Amino acid sequence: MTDTTDLTVSGESLSYPEDLCPPDNFNMVSTWIYRSSFPKKKNFSFLKKLGLKSILTLILEDYPDQNMKFLKENNVTLFQFGIAGNKEPFVQIPDDKICAALAVLLDRRNHPILIHCNKGKHRTGCLIGCLRKLQQWSHTSIFDEYRRFSHPKSRSMDQQFIELFDSREAWKVIDPKWIPDWKTLGHHAGM
Amino acid sequence: MTDTTDLTVSGESLSYPEDLCPPDNFNMVSTWIYRSSFPKKKNFSFLKKLGLKSILTLILEDYPDQNMKFLKENNVTLFQFGIAGNKEPFVQIPDDKICAALAVLLDRRNHPILIHCNKGKHRTGCLIGCLRKLQQWSHTSIFDEYRRFSHPKSRSMDQQFIELFDSREAWKVIDPKWIPDWKTLGHHAGM
Repeated sequence: MTDTTDLTVSGESLSYPEDLCPPDNFNMVSTWIYRSSFPKKKNFSFLKKLGLKSILTLILEDYPDQNMKFLKENNVTLFQFGIAGNKEPFVQIPDDKICAALAVLLDRRNHPILIHCNKGKHRTGCLIGCLRKLQQWSHTSIFDEYRRFSHPKSRSMDQQFIELFDSREAWKVIDPKWIPDWKTLGHHAGM
Repeated sequence: MTDTTDLTVSGESLSYPEDLCPPDNFNMVSTWIYRSSFPKKKNFSFLKKLGLKSILTLILEDYPDQNMKFLKENNVTLFQFGIAGNKEPFVQIPDDKICAALAVLLDRRNHPILIHCNKGKHRTGCLIGCLRKLQQWSHTSIFDEYRRFSHPKSRSMDQQFIELFDSREAWKVIDPKWIPDWKTLGHHAGM
């Protein structure tokens, strides 16, 4: 294994694994979908274990060289739907980008996939919130999850964005042929 | 579908799905492993969609009738490793119960499986923390996750329990034949 260091203790050769460091705010969202803050170099050995096929980033900026290298070495496709990471006063989150991002997320050819922005709190939280609407979660449950990951910086405007998001717009651009086999997807998906 | 209600709007017959309510503090921990607070009746339609094979509860008390009925109707096996839900001053969490619970969790014949206690904060958080040790997560990442779900009632003694837990004790009772095919499991599992 590449993530172990060999130590010799009392004449015996023992292999001690290095600790794995998931990115801050890492979580499994659903089967084959993960979320996190911006992945740093120290997180790469953990991310390798996920066997990612894609990363979906919501940052506007170019991806740093070391992250591009990680993608290339591990054959990971990058999807970028750049959204400004504004603080309030709020700039409207573009619905069309969220819909396009959901279409990527719900295409199992892209799985396993990691979603991230910078802190994994607001832009990522909004996208996951909209995904939960497609999964027919109640708004209370969706906001609970949003706040768990955005704490202590939850934004009411993010929650309003999620509440007002019309999931029918997303279903228009999602290809039913490739949606994952989750029992938790709504009836719009024909499941 | 059992979770839709038929409405007639403007002469057309449309089917509107009811909102699904995951239990409080619900989360996917790893593929086929979920966590939550104590599941109530309003959560059953959501839980059905998970296609659970087992539930692992850490409460001491008998399971209520309506929950027993849910188990029976959905062919769900109940594993109970009762631990007192003490507030501090702390009663020691029994290592042997945590090890036995981990052996159940890491037996893929029991998947999909839901772990719960009462609030899904402390006992569940300790068990997940120990699972993360088997997955070789750094303590920082483990405590981050513990606090995300126990907030605002995080307990330092829970974190100390997790830190001091010797994962080798758990590997002694885990049957390598049935461990799940996660790339994130440590080298002790021979993966």
